[in-house]
Amino acid sequence: MPANLHLSYRKLLERNKSLVVLGSAEAIVSWDMETMMPPKAVQLRSEQLALLSQIHHKMSTAPATGKLLDAILGHPRYEDLTDVEKRNVQLIKKSYDEQTKLPSALVTAMAKQRALTVNTWKKAKAAKNYAAFKPELSKLIELNRQAADILMKVKETSTPYDALIDIYEPKTTTQAITKVFDELQRGLKKLLQKLCASQNQPDTHMLKQEVPVEKQRLIAKALAQTLGYDVESPEAAGRIDETEHPFTTGYYDDVRITTHYYPNNLASAVFSVLHETGHALYEQGLAQEWKFQPVGSPCSMGIHESQSRLYENIIGRSREFWTTQLTKIQATAAPSLSNVELDGFIRAVNAVKPSKIRIEADEVTYNLHIIVRFQMERDLFAGELSVDELPAVWNQKYKETLGVEVENDAEGVMQDTHWASGLYGYFPTYALGNIYTGQIMGAIQKANATWRSELTNGNLTGVQKWLADNIYCHGDLYDPADLIKKATGTTLTVKPYLKYLTEKFSELYAF
Amino acid sequence: MPANLHLSYRKLLERNKSLVVLGSAEAIVSWDMETMMPPKAVQLRSEQLALLSQIHHKMSTAPATGKLLDAILGHPRYEDLTDVEKRNVQLIKKSYDEQTKLPSALVTAMAKQRALTVNTWKKAKAAKNYAAFKPELSKLIELNRQAADILMKVKETSTPYDALIDIYEPKTTTQAITKVFDELQRGLKKLLQKLCASQNQPDTHMLKQEVPVEKQRLIAKALAQTLGYDVESPEAAGRIDETEHPFTTGYYDDVRITTHYYPNNLASAVFSVLHETGHALYEQGLAQEWKFQPVGSPCSMGIHESQSRLYENIIGRSREFWTTQLTKIQATAAPSLSNVELDGFIRAVNAVKPSKIRIEADEVTYNLHIIVRFQMERDLFAGELSVDELPAVWNQKYKETLGVEVENDAEGVMQDTHWASGLYGYFPTYALGNIYTGQIMGAIQKANATWRSELTNGNLTGVQKWLADNIYCHGDLYDPADLIKKATGTTLTVKPYLKYLTEKFSELYAF
Repeated sequence: MPANLHLSYRKLLERNKSLVVLGSAEAIVSWDMETMMPPKAVQLRSEQLALLSQIHHKMSTAPATGKLLDAILGHPRYEDLTDVEKRNVQLIKKSYDEQTKLPSALVTAMAKQRALTVNTWKKAKAAKNYAAFKPELSKLIELNRQAADILMKVKETSTPYDALIDIYEPKTTTQAITKVFDELQRGLKKLLQKLCASQNQPDTHMLKQEVPVEKQRLIAKALAQTLGYDVESPEAAGRIDETEHPFTTGYYDDVRITTHYYPNNLASAVFSVLHETGHALYEQGLAQEWKFQPVGSPCSMGIHESQSRLYENIIGRSREFWTTQLTKIQATAAPSLSNVELDGFIRAVNAVKPSKIRIEADEVTYNLHIIVRFQMERDLFAGELSVDELPAVWNQKYKETLGVEVENDAEGVMQDTHWASGLYGYFPTYALGNIYTGQIMGAIQKANATWRSELTNGNLTGVQKWLADNIYCHGDLYDPADLIKKATGTTLTVKPYLKYLTEKFSELYAF
Repeated sequence: MPANLHLSYRKLLERNKSLVVLGSAEAIVSWDMETMMPPKAVQLRSEQLALLSQIHHKMSTAPATGKLLDAILGHPRYEDLTDVEKRNVQLIKKSYDEQTKLPSALVTAMAKQRALTVNTWKKAKAAKNYAAFKPELSKLIELNRQAADILMKVKETSTPYDALIDIYEPKTTTQAITKVFDELQRGLKKLLQKLCASQNQPDTHMLKQEVPVEKQRLIAKALAQTLGYDVESPEAAGRIDETEHPFTTGYYDDVRITTHYYPNNLASAVFSVLHETGHALYEQGLAQEWKFQPVGSPCSMGIHESQSRLYENIIGRSREFWTTQLTKIQATAAPSLSNVELDGFIRAVNAVKPSKIRIEADEVTYNLHIIVRFQMERDLFAGELSVDELPAVWNQKYKETLGVEVENDAEGVMQDTHWASGLYGYFPTYALGNIYTGQIMGAIQKANATWRSELTNGNLTGVQKWLADNIYCHGDLYDPADLIKKATGTTLTVKPYLKYLTEKFSELYAF
């Protein structure tokens, strides 16, 4: 007599809810560490986070979950479950299999090595000394290679690197990414040549005017509210705080963003707030009835990034958006920015200039920074590139791709925290996000031909409604390729994105 | 062959450490709820706190702890343990016994009823309607009575109410408290008659001058720093935030206080910051080598309150302290307070006036508010007072004790959250804290006869050193009665406190 299917399902979801709730509490504790924690608490906080993570791991690998999964998946009436229920079961199974198949000794070794490698990275970067970083990086990569070998079997991917990508962008392969990135790289190369050769370079001096941090906070809040991210009403589910590097964290009714204010760089805060607001609106827009269920999650890191880039770049660097917003930020920033006019401002915030640092890159060259990293990760995990060779290959690729000379490894291969933090397979999602925005933009255009001109009136409802109905509401019901197909009608393609960039920048640079 | 004693002990402490670390993480999540959380997150936050509390309860009642306790306490070489080690074992045993002896159905029922009763209390208080509050309060008291009956056996106290007091003030009895409170009440009655009859009443108008919140924040921070509570250096282990009701929370290297700023009531923020700073310094001053051990905790709520009252009242309302501090806050508050001189200020912040609301009470009458509550709790749990009779008895006692007419139950029996929150046996610790300060003051005086005049130079090191060496460093090594005896040389006595009040106020009111 098989166990009651629906009862098992409810029990499984109950266990999943506890994991989600615990995870959301861990997020608060981590957020506090970045934003509020008194400096002396560092050691205590690491003990707290380690304990919570240990409790989380124990709960997520509990044999009772495995038994419930077996009872449900082997149940003669499994097909009675709805598509959403089946997806929930599959997502829990995927996570359970991955976590239980990795030996706990390996999980612990990776956690320890990550902490060590990040710590070494900070010092080595400050000392511009790759040799000091290399031994710890090698160990971390080796441990991740072991994990990837195991995950490859669990996830049935064709290569270990595909298994790592799958963590962040499910069912997306090295092969598929290589194809679109190659096409993107070719397109960007052509565009970049024209942009660099243009005699019509924008003047960006106006962006360096001093705006006091107190005023920047008001501007940030007003922009967030304009996009529909509520940080001040009695019904608010968000807030804006300050950290060195901006991020978004939270769950449904408590999603928080951070930014950084530099008195001489208002644009830095403005665009990071637009970016993080895009992330936050996605989290807050997930279906309320799916809260605490696996489907009540964002689809993938790439889809997440498409949401932030859409608000930061497609909308946030458009003439339409600033038609109403520029005068508003000028009113707050006064007397600063009073000499700025719309045309010059739009050209300034869209200035393209190849550079060495990813997080400072413009809308066009940002993708090239990602492509370099993707190619290197891919070759590294394919055994075609060694940890010894990373700096030289990095510098050579920067020279070839961006035309810049990297002078030391701190501004080269050691600039980002990702590899030191064990995030392999994560980088490509940044450029995938950009590519998705091209397809999404096309679909929005098709659904509502006047959406761009509506921005001119400060009206974002057209975009908001489309995103809510076509992205947010689907949560994690589909893998990203399926979601993009469903939402935009086309499979992954770089063409709309390249077309958008080419049209936008040929107009701005007048070529 | 008995298990290795020291190995069992280390394992027991390891389990205790996890509980402490988890508790400190829960404290962060609760703090965030009070200070930072976006309003929409209320429901999610209650799920997070309920889950963490459930995990905490499961960990703290784990049978493995019981086995380790049995192995240690029954070990033939138990006496090899040091006094500190034995105290750790006894404290863990006490907590384990209490938690495991309470049926989990009762624990759950109490948690649910607490939430319900608080919720009902808020509405009933707003509507000044005790009848609406009474049924839920009755249920909560009945559940606590059941718990007290069980705890009475575990703790071997003579009455159920003693078992409740023991939660907050270990080994302190109704009998002992009645004795000192009766003496305190008699002494205060005499003092209060003279104060009320005095023709020399202070003028408190100066305290109602408007000081912008921004300036009050600077004053609060400066006062905290003056007392040695660091909220701004790169080594800071504290911070000050804003809540409706001030509180202190945290552990060792992360202890945070809150206050509330009213533009027309600087004194409210000043004295709450002095009060909470006293709590915070105690937490931060516990022995570093006892961190994560049971002895690395404050002794009791009464001792905790003695620390806050010492800074708020004994030091914080003294002429000596303000001799240097008044000009500092005037400099920040300017042009407000510029017409204030030291004598008038000291008289104003020490004004005594019987009133209906505990949290607004002055240094003298505060104790009477507590004595009324203690007597009512005592009689309630002795079965000599019913929930029906609470409002009438409250009003009658306020008339007799404080000479005030309570006009409705919102300003009467429903004014505090404690009874609605299931905190029975907690109130007496507030006045015990005051009584302890009298004994502590005497001991400081004996150790360092010039401590008061040192305050005049803004020098608090005499007090700080005595507290560190005689209170903080002992953590929870002793029960409060033993700690007070060890630190001050005398057993619990109300005389020094009454003497202090009488001398101070006869001078201030010149009688």
